[in-house]
Order: sequence, then structure tokens, then C-alpha cells
Amino acid sequence: MRMYDLIMKKRNGGCLSEAEVRYMIEQYTKGEIPDYQMSAMTMAIYFQGMSEEETLHLTMAMRDSGDTLDLSAIDGIKVDKHSTGGVGDKTSLTLTPMVAACGLKVAKMSGRGLGHTGGTIDKLESFEGFSTEISTDTFINNVNSIGIAIMGQTADLAPADKKLYALRDVTATVDNMSLIASSIMSKKLAAGADAIVLDVKTGSGAFMKNEDDAKALAKEMVTLGKNAGKNTMAVISDMDQPLGYAVGNILEVQEAIDTLNGNGPEDFMELCLTLGSLMLIAGGVAKDEVEAREKCLKVIEDGSALDKFAAFVAAQYGDNSYVYHPEKFPVAPIVEEILSPVSGYIKHIECDEIGICSLILGGGRETKESEIDLRVGLILHKKVGDYVKAGESLATIYASDETKKKQAVQRFLNAYQFTDEMIEKKSVIKTIIS
Amino acid sequence: MRMYDLIMKKRNGGCLSEAEVRYMIEQYTKGEIPDYQMSAMTMAIYFQGMSEEETLHLTMAMRDSGDTLDLSAIDGIKVDKHSTGGVGDKTSLTLTPMVAACGLKVAKMSGRGLGHTGGTIDKLESFEGFSTEISTDTFINNVNSIGIAIMGQTADLAPADKKLYALRDVTATVDNMSLIASSIMSKKLAAGADAIVLDVKTGSGAFMKNEDDAKALAKEMVTLGKNAGKNTMAVISDMDQPLGYAVGNILEVQEAIDTLNGNGPEDFMELCLTLGSLMLIAGGVAKDEVEAREKCLKVIEDGSALDKFAAFVAAQYGDNSYVYHPEKFPVAPIVEEILSPVSGYIKHIECDEIGICSLILGGGRETKESEIDLRVGLILHKKVGDYVKAGESLATIYASDETKKKQAVQRFLNAYQFTDEMIEKKSVIKTIIS
Repeated sequence: MRMYDLIMKKRNGGCLSEAEVRYMIEQYTKGEIPDYQMSAMTMAIYFQGMSEEETLHLTMAMRDSGDTLDLSAIDGIKVDKHSTGGVGDKTSLTLTPMVAACGLKVAKMSGRGLGHTGGTIDKLESFEGFSTEISTDTFINNVNSIGIAIMGQTADLAPADKKLYALRDVTATVDNMSLIASSIMSKKLAAGADAIVLDVKTGSGAFMKNEDDAKALAKEMVTLGKNAGKNTMAVISDMDQPLGYAVGNILEVQEAIDTLNGNGPEDFMELCLTLGSLMLIAGGVAKDEVEAREKCLKVIEDGSALDKFAAFVAAQYGDNSYVYHPEKFPVAPIVEEILSPVSGYIKHIECDEIGICSLILGGGRETKESEIDLRVGLILHKKVGDYVKAGESLATIYASDETKKKQAVQRFLNAYQFTDEMIEKKSVIKTIIS
Repeated sequence: MRMYDLIMKKRNGGCLSEAEVRYMIEQYTKGEIPDYQMSAMTMAIYFQGMSEEETLHLTMAMRDSGDTLDLSAIDGIKVDKHSTGGVGDKTSLTLTPMVAACGLKVAKMSGRGLGHTGGTIDKLESFEGFSTEISTDTFINNVNSIGIAIMGQTADLAPADKKLYALRDVTATVDNMSLIASSIMSKKLAAGADAIVLDVKTGSGAFMKNEDDAKALAKEMVTLGKNAGKNTMAVISDMDQPLGYAVGNILEVQEAIDTLNGNGPEDFMELCLTLGSLMLIAGGVAKDEVEAREKCLKVIEDGSALDKFAAFVAAQYGDNSYVYHPEKFPVAPIVEEILSPVSGYIKHIECDEIGICSLILGGGRETKESEIDLRVGLILHKKVGDYVKAGESLATIYASDETKKKQAVQRFLNAYQFTDEMIEKKSVIKTIIS
């Protein structure tokens, strides 16, 4: 088999066989197929597409390119959740203790944030002492005893995907549905869960700006998961404005705790309930949506979800007194209101820009090596459809530096669009694909 | 400027500006743009094409990537000729002394053969002592005094093309019209002639199997040449069967000499006259085709074309007694007839295969390092449209090895197709594009 022939076949619109895809991925991972041939291939795929079968072969070949986790030592059905990422997305922090309190086992691999969308590990490190550097034994024991453990990605999961993604990133071949879907799913499948619930974001703060694209991606991933023998479903959720009100690491942790206390923003609570219900059903903990939502609401109401979060933080060496006293978290030295320059309804928030404000303030990483300031960020007070009077506060900004604050405020104000006409508020949940 | 953005622009169907193309080619030649980005670009070009303007920018940028020859020390209009290559193509050997005898100055850079199409330099080295390793001064002096010089490609002409072609060759992005045209023309333009006559071959022994593709390529190259300010024209000629009867280095030299003596095969003579006329007109030596053909025929008839060839061989240190006594050339140890297995008209000759027979016999290079046997090859006796009786000779094979001979004979016979119906003979000249 020669890579040249495979490129030619794909370029001419042919379908690669399972053996051909495996050869390509194995040899590429080993360095036997050079980058310049693989980038010609990914560009040919961009133009010719991949069939459902080819995409499955690619996903499985990338899954098998490195370690795959064995979670069989954990009792029950393991359900994993993945979000395509967005601004103010603190979902894992609230969702995982909530479903764990309902009896689901949550064994999660998580990454750090890069760019303007924060990572779950960064947020959890707001708790002094918290560590995701735990052994696989501790990981499995904690899931069995407490119901949750979150581990940094230490295992060599899907190295082919890592190598291929880095190449696509510099050759303008990222935005192909099959390549995106196989990239996400190869890692999820290597992570060993029995069922996968996907949160595919759409809107100005998401990778998929367009709802139809988000749906197509979700469908492709659900099909891939099912064809790989895993119960897989997806929620298409709104990211045309930040999720909830808080953007920034500690600010988001506080909002997640508020939500576990039953005082969360409506959109964020709704997303947690929707994803949580799907997870409980997939995990066999609830038989239908009605029962699942009831269970989720109950563990919020009786405080057991909050207690679960506290137990989890403590089990991974974090100071869990903050869970019960989130007012103890350090506060940024500069806290100011951003006042609305006009009166009117909020017509649109350029959501990406709000993420970039947080990045400018020091709350995100520009490169892998950047240090982040956990205290900085924004608490929005007005979202799309809300009415604001001139001089009223649009948001509170948390900053550690005057210059950065000024830059961020400028950018923040430019991200808001106002109108005199009433604007209908949109639901955070667009569709469920299962 | 970033290569990433240029790939994205081309991928999305945009046109690259002159500055963008120059940046890309300059940085790629220097090694600042990696192969994996360039191969993604060439694949995007394969799918999105290039405009006439972009192709010109690419050609000029590649021309300027290395040395360009200054032929101003040669008197008169310098006309270069380029063939896209084929089986039995000994055209330069007859054409150049013919037009030089008419008064045209021929300053030619030439290459060695690779694969089954032989190179002019290999053929010329049939003359003992002949060398193309001459200094630029000798080259220019010889052209001025004798009218012809042929130099091996020592100068660093269009290195960007060399690098880019090698990459396209392993990434299945060779067969794009704009890329092929710019590759050929960048080298021709760097070689410094004032006018360019192109011989674009079409048929089963040519790179362009299809006549429409050959025409499209010819048109693209003629447009490029004209846009670069050079008088450029093209002949589309048949390569659906070998040109003339001889295939193999010494055998082709002998046929070229026969032709200079007025005893050449009809198709080969016609091609030389057609190309020669265009060259004489482009060089201002003849005013129209009638006058040009007359001049060419006259120098054949009066022996001055043959004398010119002898003078040229001598000036480049070759033993020119062979020009007048081609029977002196060494003969392969095995000379046998290949007999026709059936009676009938020759319907088709798979021309590529005849080239491969010569390669098998040792007459061509499989890799750049291969040694070649100048004596081996084939003399065809029957071409398309000819009638042959079973047991009559189709060709004489010249071999130096029994095993190779058997392989070649087998392959040769498989390349011939017979029919009971009369077949019309096709003209070697398809079209002239100017």
C-alpha cells in the first residue's frame, strides 16, 4: 500500500477502505507517512468529503493509535459528557456532582483551557490544593466510593488525532465535519465510557457559528458513537451569548456553586437539567425524562448535589470549605461596573468578544505556557432581550490591572448591540439528537 | 503575510495576488514555508484552479527563483523549442541543425532522460567524446559561429519549480493544467530565449493522453509565454504511436541522420518541417510558412543541414565521422525480428508500452543513477494502418541480454492490436496554436 495511491483515490472522489484508513493512520502516527502527504490528503478530504463508513474507520483507527482506558473496575454504566466549548461554560462543575448525587458514576478526563474558552481543570484549581494529578487507582476508587473523579489527560489517548489536528490547524483543513467529528469521538471512545452525552454549542461564541452546521456535526458524532457500539446522544445548545452570567474562573465556580444551591441562572440550570437527564437515562438511573428531571431537582433541593461536590473536591485534595462559603474566594483588586451608554433592549452580544475580554484580563491562556489569573472576569447583568437604561450597569468587571481593564471594557462595549424594539429571548436548548 | 491565510483563500476559491504568489514561492524556495503547507496549497489549487493571471504570477515567481540566462551576446532572435516528451522523439537532433542551416541561432539547454522517454543529451552521447559540459562562453561562442550549441542544465534555473514538482510528484497534485504549464514555462523563460516553440504531444505515449487536454495545456502555455512578452506558439502532435520507426538511443540518432539525408520517416519529417517553419518565422528568418518550408527542404536537399550537424558535434568534442557513416555505430549483440502472430491491419499500438520495452532492454533510466545501454531498442516496421501478414516482421529488436529481450518481446506483442478492417492513417500534426 502506498500513501500516494490513497491520496489519488480520495482526490478522485473514491472511498478509502478500512485497511487503507488503518494503514494511513498507523504509518502517520509512526512518522512513516510524512506531513506533506497527510496535508494533501486532508485537503482532498476537505473537497471530496468522507462517507459515514470512512469516518467510522478513521475514528476507530485514531482511537486505537494509543492507550485506551479500561473502566471496567468501576461499577455500573459509565457515562461521559463532552462539550464543544464556549464562553462561560462551567457546566461540568454543576452537572457532574448533580448526576453523581443521583447515583450515576462519573469518570472524567479533562483538559486545560486554551484561548478564550476556559478549561474545567483551571476552574477546579480555584480550590486551594485541588489536584487532577491522581493515579488511575485513586481515580477508579474515588469514582466507586464518591461517584466522581476528574483526571488530567495523562494517558496517551488518540495520539494520531493530536498529530493530525496540529497539522490541520496550520493547513486550513480544520473545518470539515467528518474530520471534526472523528477527532472528538476518537478521544471520547479511547476514554472508555459506555455512553456519551455531547453538548454541541452553536452561535457567535461557538466553533459552529451556524445551527445547521452544529446539527450536522452532532448527527455525525451520534452516528459515530452508535456505530462504535456506544449509546450516544447530543444536545444542541445556544452559545450566541455567554452561558449564565459569570465569565472567568473563580466567578464561574461561584456561579456553579450558586446553581448547586438552587440559585443558578435560568439558562445554565436548564442546560444542566437537560444534559443531566440524558446522562441519567443513558446510565440506567432514570427511566425517562420526567423521572430524570425530578431526581436532578431533588438533589439540588435537598443539598446532596452540593455535598457531593464538596466530597469530590476534598477527595482530590482541595479545600472544600469554599464550596459552602464561596464568598471566601479571593476577589480581583479592581471591581467596577460597566455602564450602558444608551437605553434600549440588548439585541445581540458578540459572544466570542466577551471571551476575549476575559482573556485580555488574564483569565485565559494565549499559549499553553501562559499563567492565568483565576480572579478576573465579568459578571453580566444584562443579556439578550433584557432592557437597560443609559447609565445602568451592563456588567461588573473584575480586573487586576488598569490598562487591561480599559482594553477589556472597550471591547466589551463594542460587543453589545442595542435596539428600541423588544427582542424575544431564545431558549438555551435548540434540539436533542439521539 | 501568512501561508495559512493563502491556503485558506485558495481553498475558498479566491485568487492570490501577485504579492501573495511571490511571497509563497520565495519563502518556499528558502525553506521558510514547509512542504506540508505547500502540498495543502497544491491540492487546493487542484480543486479550485488558478486564473490566467495567477498562473502568470506563479510562472514569473518561479522563473525568478534562481538564475536566468542572458543570451544577449548571441546575435539575432533566439528561438527555443520544447517538447513535452514521447516515445521515439529524436526531433531536436534533426530539427536544430536544419533550422541552424537556415540561419537561425539555436541555444538550447537540455536534460537527460528519465523513465521511458529518452533525453537529447543521452542520444548525443552516442558520438564518442561528445560533451554538453561546456562553459557559458563556449556555449555563446558556438551559437554565434556555428549556429547551434546544447548545454546540460548546469545553471540553477527555476529551483522553485524543481522543489515544487518533486512535492507534487508525491502528493498526487501533478495533473493540474496551470501547475503543469507554469512548471514548463518558468524553466523556458529562465532559459532566456526571445521566442518559444512548443511541441505538445498527445496520445497513449504522451503525458496528455487526451487531445482536448493537450490543447488546453498548449493554449495555457502560449498565453503564459505571450503574457511574459515572448513570441510563443505550440504544435499539438500525435504520440498515439512512436514517432518515426526507431526507439532507442543509437537507433534514433541513426534515424535522425537518415532524415537529415532526406530519407526520414514521413511522420517525423513532417513534424520537423512544421516545428522548423514556426521557428524560422518566429526568428525572422522566413516571412511565412511557404518560404519557411522551402528553406528547410533546401538545406536537407543540399546537405547543409547534415554538415551543420557534423560541425555541431565536432564543436562539442564529438567524433563527427559517425554523422557521415552512421553504420559505424556499435550494434547490440542480439538483433532479431519480432514476427506478427496474425494477419491484419494494425489498429492500435499502446505507445507507452513500446517505451517501456526500450526501458526493459536497458535503453532508459529507471532512476537518475541508472547506466544506459545506447545500442538497444527497436526499429518498428509496421505502424497504425499498415497491413501485416502472419509471420511477417513487426519490428527488429536490438538487445544485449536474452532474458530482457524475451520480456520486451512479450510486452511488445501485447502492445499491438490488430483488426480485419482497414484503418485510416492519422496525421502527426493535430493543430497549431499561436
